[in-house]
Amino acid sequence: MTDLAPPARGYNAVELIRHKRDGGVLDPDQVRWLVEAYTAGRVAEEQMSAMAMAIFFRGLDDAELRAWTAAMIGTGERLDFSGLSRPTADKHSTGGVGDKITLPLAPLVAACGVAVPQLSGRGLGHTGGTLDKLESIPGWRASLSTEEMLAQLEEVGAVVCAAGSGLAPADRKLYALRDVTGTVEAIPLIASSIMSKKIAEGTGALVLDVKVGSGAFMTELEDARTLARTMVALGTDAGVTTVALLTDMSTPLGLTAGNALEVRESVEVLAGGGPPDVVELTLALAREMVAAAGRDDVDPADALADGRAMDVWRAMVRAQGGDPDAPLPTARHTATVTADGSGTLTRLDARAVGVAAWRLGAGRARKEDPVQAGAGVELHARPGDVVRAGQPLLTLHTDDPDRVAAAEEALRGGWTIGGEPQPAPVVLERITA
Amino acid sequence: MTDLAPPARGYNAVELIRHKRDGGVLDPDQVRWLVEAYTAGRVAEEQMSAMAMAIFFRGLDDAELRAWTAAMIGTGERLDFSGLSRPTADKHSTGGVGDKITLPLAPLVAACGVAVPQLSGRGLGHTGGTLDKLESIPGWRASLSTEEMLAQLEEVGAVVCAAGSGLAPADRKLYALRDVTGTVEAIPLIASSIMSKKIAEGTGALVLDVKVGSGAFMTELEDARTLARTMVALGTDAGVTTVALLTDMSTPLGLTAGNALEVRESVEVLAGGGPPDVVELTLALAREMVAAAGRDDVDPADALADGRAMDVWRAMVRAQGGDPDAPLPTARHTATVTADGSGTLTRLDARAVGVAAWRLGAGRARKEDPVQAGAGVELHARPGDVVRAGQPLLTLHTDDPDRVAAAEEALRGGWTIGGEPQPAPVVLERITA
Repeated sequence: MTDLAPPARGYNAVELIRHKRDGGVLDPDQVRWLVEAYTAGRVAEEQMSAMAMAIFFRGLDDAELRAWTAAMIGTGERLDFSGLSRPTADKHSTGGVGDKITLPLAPLVAACGVAVPQLSGRGLGHTGGTLDKLESIPGWRASLSTEEMLAQLEEVGAVVCAAGSGLAPADRKLYALRDVTGTVEAIPLIASSIMSKKIAEGTGALVLDVKVGSGAFMTELEDARTLARTMVALGTDAGVTTVALLTDMSTPLGLTAGNALEVRESVEVLAGGGPPDVVELTLALAREMVAAAGRDDVDPADALADGRAMDVWRAMVRAQGGDPDAPLPTARHTATVTADGSGTLTRLDARAVGVAAWRLGAGRARKEDPVQAGAGVELHARPGDVVRAGQPLLTLHTDDPDRVAAAEEALRGGWTIGGEPQPAPVVLERITA
Repeated sequence: MTDLAPPARGYNAVELIRHKRDGGVLDPDQVRWLVEAYTAGRVAEEQMSAMAMAIFFRGLDDAELRAWTAAMIGTGERLDFSGLSRPTADKHSTGGVGDKITLPLAPLVAACGVAVPQLSGRGLGHTGGTLDKLESIPGWRASLSTEEMLAQLEEVGAVVCAAGSGLAPADRKLYALRDVTGTVEAIPLIASSIMSKKIAEGTGALVLDVKVGSGAFMTELEDARTLARTMVALGTDAGVTTVALLTDMSTPLGLTAGNALEVRESVEVLAGGGPPDVVELTLALAREMVAAAGRDDVDPADALADGRAMDVWRAMVRAQGGDPDAPLPTARHTATVTADGSGTLTRLDARAVGVAAWRLGAGRARKEDPVQAGAGVELHARPGDVVRAGQPLLTLHTDDPDRVAAAEEALRGGWTIGGEPQPAPVVLERITA
């Protein structure tokens, strides 16, 4: 009944929650007030979590979402890459198992004359984080000042580093709240979380890799499509050339899920080898980034084939203190999981592999947790391959043999041998403005 | 993604929130864990508010609701009236404007040989609180120990006092949270909030007055019916004979809304006079209470007519330190609102009158606020009455003349003169198990 009191200043949070809860639309002023007051601590955590749950059920319309995203951006600083001699393009993946694509992609796109400012996060749960992977390279450091980042972008053309706390601090606070209140999965909040950071980052072009399938955040194609369209519209409205690819995450990408394991596989791709699906997705995203940045005169396949992408990779690692020639860490223990039948492997579940890698030590449950550089899962077969009973199917890597049982439990029921193989294209759809 | 971690102990709050959010059913163990962990502070406020909002959208099924209510009861103490020489019956109203019914009702039912243990709350917002009304009687005090309450029940037969903090403390905490997070209006949470306290209180029979209309919590008949059925089922399951009446709250009850104003009107009813609607509802509820307590051999109308109810009232006030003969406080200022046309008054909006009384000082916006004993609104006409332009329609009472303008603003558009009067029965429906 406190809604009867006239608001002391600004709006009344309870009124706004009830309005959204009952299917109403918030006007841009109300949205801005809510986001700012929450960031400043004048709207309580328990009020914002109720609002987030109401948004889960009621959604945000286009104008609300634009206002929400703009308000989140407005709570922090914005970067500016307009002084660089090259156009910029960034990529964001919604997260998947074995998704090491940033590692070969950033140097490849830079080798095509487009600067790649990739501000990344650490992994939480069963999908790994790009920074965790790169930190398995001896000496490599994720934290750069804005000046260091700009200098590296100009000199090397690509940088993968930790996003500073100055970009959209509202998102940092809101994401932490959503994580503990079961409100992560609201599409408008996912879209504004991602896009507020990418728009504040100041990239000129953005390619979104929206994953679909058991190992992804979005398990349904329709949800992924909605998220992709929402983000493309937000980016376009903000003046960022934005394209999204919907890509398959029913099975892991490539043959590894882990940190050092994925760096090794990424280097193989940069050396002209590597699993075909990783190569295909890397090239598909690189072509989108290069085109979105206005450089459709170059073909990334050439820069991959002639070693220029590898050169940028080595320079990029070195620029951040890493030694590209140092041996990568390996786990102290391995265990082999063998095929329990003979025939075609028709399914290898991304989520099962992701949870297994996470339990082996490759990921973290809380953001304070350390990760093991060498831990993870190595695949010896992919869907479509013929296997024989008793043949090694997976190798589990961990420093801690006590973790193997829990990983094996996560893998139980995680594959199917026999039946008709399903064709699984890597790129499912392309979404543009 | 934290849901991937096995719960350290008990359940994982985020898992439970997501399960409910996605339409799942919580099992009784999960419900009990959630309520207990929340009460103990192990489930955070922001988690419970997200759960409450998910329940707003998804509801609780019968088994969940029983478990929820039992868990709330289990967080506190239970009273026991089985040692009394008389059966017990209590009444709960969901709150309305001018709803002074408890004041004549409790002594009337006691005069019929049924003890009435009425543990009440203070008002918040536009519906007044029974304790606030009684506290306008010089000397009367709301706080009694359990021993004092039991002694008064045995000696006088009726007690209206403040509910101790020992009954369903989970409800106290949860209600405060719901109040600031826009989650008050979830029917299962309303039902379990009311019924947990009434069942813990230990009454043998319970009559619910579920109000419907602009001045009530429930403005739609269908919602009120659902709430009534839900509460009747909860009470019956817990072994309490429970009946509900759906009653009209589109217009205020009686001719007064305020504290001392309503005490005066209640005394008029006990003296054999008073507004017909107040008399009718008091008798209807008294008959239900007496019958539910197994005393259908007595007619409350007799106890009202022959002055026995008034005798109990005087004893009841005196037992709690009040002087039934002391003059009641009056407000220092009055202002008259006149009819703006001539014809039949066909509508006088309960909510408008309730908000006006509240703004005049009869109610509070925050639970720490004081109330004015004399403040409120006095009606000079009720729907169905013929009025002439310029005739006094309402008198506004307040100690603070600065409040009059805000009260007048609340009343704007609050009545209609002319058109066909709508018949408005006091009791709309009766709901039993």
